[in-house]
Amino acid sequence: MTQSQQDPTGRLRHLLSLQGLPRDMLHTLLARAETYCAPAGQRAPRNTQLAGRTVANLFFEPSTRTRASFELAARRLGAEVLNLDISLSSTAKGESILDTLDTLLAMGVDAFVVRHTDDGLHAMLADFLGHRAALINAGEGISNHPTQGLLDALTIRRHKPALEQLTVTIAGDIRHSRVAHSAVHALTTLGVGELRLAAPAAALADDHLPGNRFTDLDQAVRDADVIMMLRIQKERMAAEQVPDTTQYLQHFGLTPERLALARPDAIVMHPGPMNRGVEIADSVADGPQAVIREQVANGVAVRMAVLEMLLD
Amino acid sequence: MTQSQQDPTGRLRHLLSLQGLPRDMLHTLLARAETYCAPAGQRAPRNTQLAGRTVANLFFEPSTRTRASFELAARRLGAEVLNLDISLSSTAKGESILDTLDTLLAMGVDAFVVRHTDDGLHAMLADFLGHRAALINAGEGISNHPTQGLLDALTIRRHKPALEQLTVTIAGDIRHSRVAHSAVHALTTLGVGELRLAAPAAALADDHLPGNRFTDLDQAVRDADVIMMLRIQKERMAAEQVPDTTQYLQHFGLTPERLALARPDAIVMHPGPMNRGVEIADSVADGPQAVIREQVANGVAVRMAVLEMLLD
Amino acid sequence: MTQSQQDPTGRLRHLLSLQGLPRDMLHTLLARAETYCAPAGQRAPRNTQLAGRTVANLFFEPSTRTRASFELAARRLGAEVLNLDISLSSTAKGESILDTLDTLLAMGVDAFVVRHTDDGLHAMLADFLGHRAALINAGEGISNHPTQGLLDALTIRRHKPALEQLTVTIAGDIRHSRVAHSAVHALTTLGVGELRLAAPAAALADDHLPGNRFTDLDQAVRDADVIMMLRIQKERMAAEQVPDTTQYLQHFGLTPERLALARPDAIVMHPGPMNRGVEIADSVADGPQAVIREQVANGVAVRMAVLEMLLD
Repeated sequence: MTQSQQDPTGRLRHLLSLQGLPRDMLHTLLARAETYCAPAGQRAPRNTQLAGRTVANLFFEPSTRTRASFELAARRLGAEVLNLDISLSSTAKGESILDTLDTLLAMGVDAFVVRHTDDGLHAMLADFLGHRAALINAGEGISNHPTQGLLDALTIRRHKPALEQLTVTIAGDIRHSRVAHSAVHALTTLGVGELRLAAPAAALADDHLPGNRFTDLDQAVRDADVIMMLRIQKERMAAEQVPDTTQYLQHFGLTPERLALARPDAIVMHPGPMNRGVEIADSVADGPQAVIREQVANGVAVRMAVLEMLLD
Repeated sequence: MTQSQQDPTGRLRHLLSLQGLPRDMLHTLLARAETYCAPAGQRAPRNTQLAGRTVANLFFEPSTRTRASFELAARRLGAEVLNLDISLSSTAKGESILDTLDTLLAMGVDAFVVRHTDDGLHAMLADFLGHRAALINAGEGISNHPTQGLLDALTIRRHKPALEQLTVTIAGDIRHSRVAHSAVHALTTLGVGELRLAAPAAALADDHLPGNRFTDLDQAVRDADVIMMLRIQKERMAAEQVPDTTQYLQHFGLTPERLALARPDAIVMHPGPMNRGVEIADSVADGPQAVIREQVANGVAVRMAVLEMLLD
Repeated sequence: MTQSQQDPTGRLRHLLSLQGLPRDMLHTLLARAETYCAPAGQRAPRNTQLAGRTVANLFFEPSTRTRASFELAARRLGAEVLNLDISLSSTAKGESILDTLDTLLAMGVDAFVVRHTDDGLHAMLADFLGHRAALINAGEGISNHPTQGLLDALTIRRHKPALEQLTVTIAGDIRHSRVAHSAVHALTTLGVGELRLAAPAAALADDHLPGNRFTDLDQAVRDADVIMMLRIQKERMAAEQVPDTTQYLQHFGLTPERLALARPDAIVMHPGPMNRGVEIADSVADGPQAVIREQVANGVAVRMAVLEMLLD
């Protein structure tokens, strides 16, 4: 990655990855996001901090939840939102992504929220934009999904503030999960007590990623404070000879029996959308330990904080 | 249908069906809609009653007019609108509709406007939402399209307020028309004088639906005050051996000759989009008795009234 | 064309074509657009002149940049914007475009921004709308793209105000380019000194279009003040035996060597999206003489001016 997402003074210019982002910056972002979390039953805060600014959503992969979350975050700060379905339009004419950014820049777009399957693309786009506009990574191949990592950290911290005492288990197809990668980046920087990465052997993370490896989920969840289940990509399971979906829940899903091995006050997380009955049992997904809806709500708050910090 | 759309105090929580909705409630909705009808040539009223509220449009069937009508209605009350094209995004990942609603709820969506081909789905979604958000049925299989029924009732009432003296003829593929079903629900509750249902034999409504049956359109329109033509679904015509489109206009379309059998001041309605030259002759569609454009304008007013009543 | 875009008093009712638009009207539009050009580094001006008005974007051809430009223009004047993807919705039901317009009119749409492949369609739509709403041509087959012509004229004028002394070269597939046609209409009405149309023989404009013809690009750019390169449509090149893309740059693209034949202060324009390395060399597209980004920024300003003049 050539583009620093922070300028020499430490100011955040783009949000590309949580990897390498200093602990102070994470704390600042999370603290700001806290101010955008509505107390239960109350309406989400809104202001006009970004009135007159324009945010363009460029999603090259289909998305309901992340696109909606960014759209609401931008609008709740008073910004204009342009939703561009690139696959249906300019690529039909072979326009390059850089030329699209350049064109939208000239129209006065201030921030680009980009989801794309290609690892490394976002850093290239940020290099291109420089100080002219902000690039926010809304999902990058298998490597980064920084606003997801932030909302996961926020959700954990709101339930269990003493991070250095926590055991956090992330379980699923770690190797191919941008959610896992960004969560690991956030949690290691924030100094979580013990980080466990649990996956079927073929899907364990490679060696750069910190954390203790487990191939047995029972062992991985024992006495954990936080269990974050990942979404299974069914296409990948076939390719890598992971057991089929009907067997998966017993082998590597979060069942009530398995959850009982964790601490009694453990929280259960999932980035959604869930494959119910595959990586997570219905009764766990809907049970009292699940904080999955809070993750979604925190996602809007985190994205408001990121947009505000980058554009204000 | 398990979910009552009204709570025990009579307050409207969801709008699923006009069937079973008390006459008082219909009158209240129509009276409120009247306040949103612009006098001819004037701009539609707008206010900020729903500022800070978010309405999500979830259309699982393609729609231009109904989606646009709901979008304008919500915005003219100051609400935010999220347009979600579900078929292109989350279902590509197999996310269930309930999980989509749950996610959007967590982001602060206050009302869901849903169109779907499955009969019964909307009641299930409303059950799931309970008091957390409002569900508005924007088209459900062949059984309900309540805002269309309301706009039809409003249009009739504005032209001919003495409903109990009217003869209203609904003609077309009654059996498979959610428009017809919702119109019948509204008009019987409001106490229309005589309700006539006219269809080729194979497309007549089954017995639960009140109204006098006709298979001869000439007889059905004789001395009618209101003639509501339905859109022909060409696919269904073939399947049920209804005459082909070239013959249809003569057999079962509204021609000027046929319209002459009705009362001279009869109004002609159509929910759109019209198959001109099939169920309705061009000269009738564009003639002085047609109130089809008013139906569209009234549709926005009715949807404003519904949104306001559910969210305020 | 049957519909006059100006009413008998000269007031602009629709924007269909720059052909036949009086010089005064062009000057008025360009002067108004100037007021919406932000000084470099400043945010685009915005106001609430069109608050309460609704603009519907009906794009029957895919478009990122033009659709976004119109959307931002309308919103920066305070108007509501409805984006309607017609191909996905009403045409699936066979609804005619006129019935779609009629329906949206009844909902209170004030202006329709329409892009379509059919030459002549826009005049027909404007005839239908009459004084009820404005029709803005956002791209029509191969014949008109008037807001592009205006932004090109604005861009030239801002760099070189003495139009009557300029030599302007338009180069590419002139015959099939609506961009070229609208630019020629604008520049001839505004009285440009010399207009040169350069194309491979098969793609030269037919005789109605004023301007001097060139089939040799070197000759066409010699001593030019302005060079406007057109986008190559690769499909058409094959059909008309124009050289393939790898050879095209040398034969008919703007290389640095060719640009050196023009005046040293010549500006280089392109409507985008560019085929880099085909009709324009990268170093020219990104070089100091290119004003391509300004064209994009001016496009928003021009569309604000057009919307304001038509709706105010």
